[in-house]
Amino acid sequence: MISFANDYSEGAHPRILEMMGRANLEQNDGYGLDAHSEKARQLIKRAVGREDVSIHFLTGGTQTNLLAISSVLRPHQAVITASTGHINVHECGAIEAAGHKVLTWHCEDGRLTPEGICRLFTEHTTEHMVMPKMVYLSDSTELGTIYTKAQLTDIHNCCREHGLYLFLDGARIGTALMAEGNDLTLRDLASLTDAFYIGGTKNGALLGEAYVICNPAFDEDFRYQMKQKGAMLAKGFLIGIQYEALFKDNLYFELAAHANRMAQRLKDGMLDMGVKFLVDSPTNQQFPILDHRIIQQLEQKFLFHTEKVIDEAHTCIRLVTSWATKESYVEDFLKDLLTLLS
Amino acid sequence: MISFANDYSEGAHPRILEMMGRANLEQNDGYGLDAHSEKARQLIKRAVGREDVSIHFLTGGTQTNLLAISSVLRPHQAVITASTGHINVHECGAIEAAGHKVLTWHCEDGRLTPEGICRLFTEHTTEHMVMPKMVYLSDSTELGTIYTKAQLTDIHNCCREHGLYLFLDGARIGTALMAEGNDLTLRDLASLTDAFYIGGTKNGALLGEAYVICNPAFDEDFRYQMKQKGAMLAKGFLIGIQYEALFKDNLYFELAAHANRMAQRLKDGMLDMGVKFLVDSPTNQQFPILDHRIIQQLEQKFLFHTEKVIDEAHTCIRLVTSWATKESYVEDFLKDLLTLLS
Amino acid sequence: MISFANDYSEGAHPRILEMMGRANLEQNDGYGLDAHSEKARQLIKRAVGREDVSIHFLTGGTQTNLLAISSVLRPHQAVITASTGHINVHECGAIEAAGHKVLTWHCEDGRLTPEGICRLFTEHTTEHMVMPKMVYLSDSTELGTIYTKAQLTDIHNCCREHGLYLFLDGARIGTALMAEGNDLTLRDLASLTDAFYIGGTKNGALLGEAYVICNPAFDEDFRYQMKQKGAMLAKGFLIGIQYEALFKDNLYFELAAHANRMAQRLKDGMLDMGVKFLVDSPTNQQFPILDHRIIQQLEQKFLFHTEKVIDEAHTCIRLVTSWATKESYVEDFLKDLLTLLS
Amino acid sequence: MISFANDYSEGAHPRILEMMGRANLEQNDGYGLDAHSEKARQLIKRAVGREDVSIHFLTGGTQTNLLAISSVLRPHQAVITASTGHINVHECGAIEAAGHKVLTWHCEDGRLTPEGICRLFTEHTTEHMVMPKMVYLSDSTELGTIYTKAQLTDIHNCCREHGLYLFLDGARIGTALMAEGNDLTLRDLASLTDAFYIGGTKNGALLGEAYVICNPAFDEDFRYQMKQKGAMLAKGFLIGIQYEALFKDNLYFELAAHANRMAQRLKDGMLDMGVKFLVDSPTNQQFPILDHRIIQQLEQKFLFHTEKVIDEAHTCIRLVTSWATKESYVEDFLKDLLTLLS
Repeated sequence: MISFANDYSEGAHPRILEMMGRANLEQNDGYGLDAHSEKARQLIKRAVGREDVSIHFLTGGTQTNLLAISSVLRPHQAVITASTGHINVHECGAIEAAGHKVLTWHCEDGRLTPEGICRLFTEHTTEHMVMPKMVYLSDSTELGTIYTKAQLTDIHNCCREHGLYLFLDGARIGTALMAEGNDLTLRDLASLTDAFYIGGTKNGALLGEAYVICNPAFDEDFRYQMKQKGAMLAKGFLIGIQYEALFKDNLYFELAAHANRMAQRLKDGMLDMGVKFLVDSPTNQQFPILDHRIIQQLEQKFLFHTEKVIDEAHTCIRLVTSWATKESYVEDFLKDLLTLLS
Repeated sequence: MISFANDYSEGAHPRILEMMGRANLEQNDGYGLDAHSEKARQLIKRAVGREDVSIHFLTGGTQTNLLAISSVLRPHQAVITASTGHINVHECGAIEAAGHKVLTWHCEDGRLTPEGICRLFTEHTTEHMVMPKMVYLSDSTELGTIYTKAQLTDIHNCCREHGLYLFLDGARIGTALMAEGNDLTLRDLASLTDAFYIGGTKNGALLGEAYVICNPAFDEDFRYQMKQKGAMLAKGFLIGIQYEALFKDNLYFELAAHANRMAQRLKDGMLDMGVKFLVDSPTNQQFPILDHRIIQQLEQKFLFHTEKVIDEAHTCIRLVTSWATKESYVEDFLKDLLTLLS
Repeated sequence: MISFANDYSEGAHPRILEMMGRANLEQNDGYGLDAHSEKARQLIKRAVGREDVSIHFLTGGTQTNLLAISSVLRPHQAVITASTGHINVHECGAIEAAGHKVLTWHCEDGRLTPEGICRLFTEHTTEHMVMPKMVYLSDSTELGTIYTKAQLTDIHNCCREHGLYLFLDGARIGTALMAEGNDLTLRDLASLTDAFYIGGTKNGALLGEAYVICNPAFDEDFRYQMKQKGAMLAKGFLIGIQYEALFKDNLYFELAAHANRMAQRLKDGMLDMGVKFLVDSPTNQQFPILDHRIIQQLEQKFLFHTEKVIDEAHTCIRLVTSWATKESYVEDFLKDLLTLLS
Repeated sequence: MISFANDYSEGAHPRILEMMGRANLEQNDGYGLDAHSEKARQLIKRAVGREDVSIHFLTGGTQTNLLAISSVLRPHQAVITASTGHINVHECGAIEAAGHKVLTWHCEDGRLTPEGICRLFTEHTTEHMVMPKMVYLSDSTELGTIYTKAQLTDIHNCCREHGLYLFLDGARIGTALMAEGNDLTLRDLASLTDAFYIGGTKNGALLGEAYVICNPAFDEDFRYQMKQKGAMLAKGFLIGIQYEALFKDNLYFELAAHANRMAQRLKDGMLDMGVKFLVDSPTNQQFPILDHRIIQQLEQKFLFHTEKVIDEAHTCIRLVTSWATKESYVEDFLKDLLTLLS
């Protein structure tokens, strides 16, 4: 079986494993206070172009979203997200379990708009309702789409106008920044958001998310929150070393670029066959709509998830590529699909 | 510098890294549903002598304690622990943050007694107070001491009598079970507790705790709780592979035995020099009481933590050994100490 | 000014105050364990036709909803409501603050349907999502509409089929049961729901809701939950006495009938003038749609809330009557409106 | 039976009921935004000598403690209390259920000391532990003792030095301020604490606590917290009217003085008979130590609670007087006790 089920099926890029191996018998300080984590922080600060950000290493996306949101909001404050947002659907109510309402705005392509934010803000007017206080975005989104610099700037301005914090989930920020059509940079994120993260789990690390705090208010006692939520690894250097490997040269972006390339091959190949897509994604998640019969055939050899039923005969599936996707996987898929469609 | 600061300064035992390397480019299912995790579960089930336990892999001790306790207790129910218990002191209020009061009993050597449990149980009589519902132990304890089979059986019986759950923190269960004087086995834990865990982080793994559920009530919807608390790793196979390596032969216990051996060398050496200890620990944590002046000298070359001030001239320090402690570290320490004491 | 702003502007019905005055210098047991509360429980048990229900007296609707839901659900479980439901909009995120996601279904007239429940249930399939476990209804609804016995039975059956609890918010159950077209009784509620409440605050009491537990699982340690949430009144007899007064004869229903009568007078009068309504409500809340200019005129003399803007020229307002609404208030309003419309 | 079980056995002082009766058919705004609540706020501001405090009316002590503490602390922050403190023992873990650890200091007579606060503060040094951020006191204490102005000033200074908030539970502040030996005033409380409350439930009101916020940071969005915790009464005027009655003249203090007078009669009478007391209380709670046999006899005619067993033959009981305690109750008790002791 060949898997297009997700971008976290394999271990870590060999250059990461190699660096871990070299450091294996060093005696490092615990809890992320080691020299590797510090070095990784310096590299990331250089990449985002700001010395005054704070960086904490966490183990996964849900944990990072949970901590970023719950460490800042007071109990009556709510977070705004696209209805498709990961925090709304796929985190088992983690934000609510931390006490906060998630306010949603319906978005066809996964991207939140200033209009949606503004409407939700103005509808919540009294102490009988929750108080919107943060906006949550992800780039790339759950549907593989990305924000332009103009769009993110508009959202940034909308947030400033209404006193809302802006937090960006970057579990797949690598593929977003390397996508065709993208004009955002890490530096832009550092100036347009209060906090964001640079995802490692889905871009070649064993595990790890680098949470970058741009607004100092988000950093107050953040390590207490990490500890309390069980998110402070004893061997924090384990993630530090990986980010050192990802950012000491261009590895982080190379891996994302490869994933995108594989996805665009899939996309172009299917477009050539006349396949329709749910959305036009420039990143490593593609959402082709296929006949049920064909999907069943593909499932004999390929792993992937179903996104949604379109009509009686058609379903949208999700194909995900990663740093580890081989070109032969893509060729195999396209060849088989072509045969099935003929 | 040579570190005796803790048992999580180094990476992973080479045989673990090796197995991770071999599996690195496999495509595994996510979220702990992969073949390696399943294989590791089978190996652990064999080691605990029960097919009907459930096993979940988590990333650290605080996370495991938090999940084990909060997934079972209702909001008005409390957990009983020794006053020195990790959940009471060193987890930044994680249990309270999940809504539960931690009831403490003062214990000189870190070991809870049936008498303490019984007293706390009988003092809580009405709905104006919390309802004690779980007992939390760790073996080995925060002070390196261990429970005998008779002691654990007494506590088990006390819990059954009062309708209390019994949960055992096994972050250092390896060194407990390999300690001189120990007569407990993993099989005993599986029959005397409702749940316990087999710590990996402090016994040679990169990260990971194997949470073993003996009482099926603890397993109901446990994966929902994992997800909600940000504890479900996308690449769950990362921990599965490590436990496969630790339990496919005797590695887990060999590593713990080494740590104990190094600690006993330290202890015997210091006893020979007339050094007094806070408690008599048979495991990898030792608590010698030394003159302040000598401690300052040792700190020039060795890393360790201070446990508590004893009097104007003396302080108790904590020395921790691990699977990675070299004999030369121990010899260096003893040699230097002997010189300082002469 | 004459207020149609809500049904809790006045104090208590004189027969309630009178009974409180008579009992004032008695020495009663605290915390709802007094003879008056016990007597009130007996009267309510007779009214609902079941001896085996449990009854607890609470101070308000949000407190009762919060306790009923959070005392039963585990952290990963969610409650389903109409999008207009009080718990979704007007309780400042109380349910989320207690850790639970509120899943909503859009409902034009405030009434949830088995179809909506079923859809939300079937969409939530894995531990990555919350688990729907309870359905929340209110009768009468936020829009004044009521459920028929057939509708509530269908929802009951849908809940049983999917293992969902059914909880009914009865803050305005009096007006629902006394409405034209209603065919439900308190006895029906006791057999079709797991728990419901009989609202006092909005039906002539100073404060108080009688929470009736039909499913014994809801009653386990419920008094602990009350205490913990600050909901156990020291002078619990204060609410007990009021329910004694409301249920020792037919007072509870007389008061609701009066409120409905006043509302229907308003409705009929406005219908005669050709006024349109947002929904067809048979209870004490009416939602006429009026011209902005007319609303401004009415606001000179009458207090009421705005429900929603309909179009550039029209807004829907909410008029609420109560046990204390005088016929002259209604006549004044209709007379003034007629003049304004002429 | 005559009850000395508590100070909340009776309803309300007749002057309070009378004022409620007069206002009964007025149409008041909801949620504490009415003219009576506003008038009561003005009267209390005058009594505490500050115009710039904020005042919110709540229904009981546990609710007020819960709100005052949880609305201010962040999740990793803890509150310090005497081990006997109401929040530690008798609120069913309400503070922990809101996420905060309660740190305790053992105090023989119920009064916390600067030494205890300082010790707990200095022991909590890293993010692995909770961060002490608030001190909770009650005056009078659970054992009827009171703080002098010098003592409260010392605690105030200690809190300022360590950046700790100071919150004072005034459920029984009336009897404290009217006690012999007291030199504190409401004005002092307003300058020495960040927030405190003036208890009504235990001093002649049907229900109600007036929460006085002296530090504006405590007031930020406090009404959201009230609503979210189910503490915002629809008929908030119900409590406003009562405080208007209690503070428009000297009624609040007259009632407390009466309670104290009755308690001192009991105390003096028993001292004359040679009875020993657990503590020397100048307020309305007395803790005599009596022979078991005598206690059993007294229980035939009087209601009271047992405080603690002293030795095989003796137990300490708690006798509580109130605004409603009649002199004849006291005389009866003393007469019977004298007979039993003879």
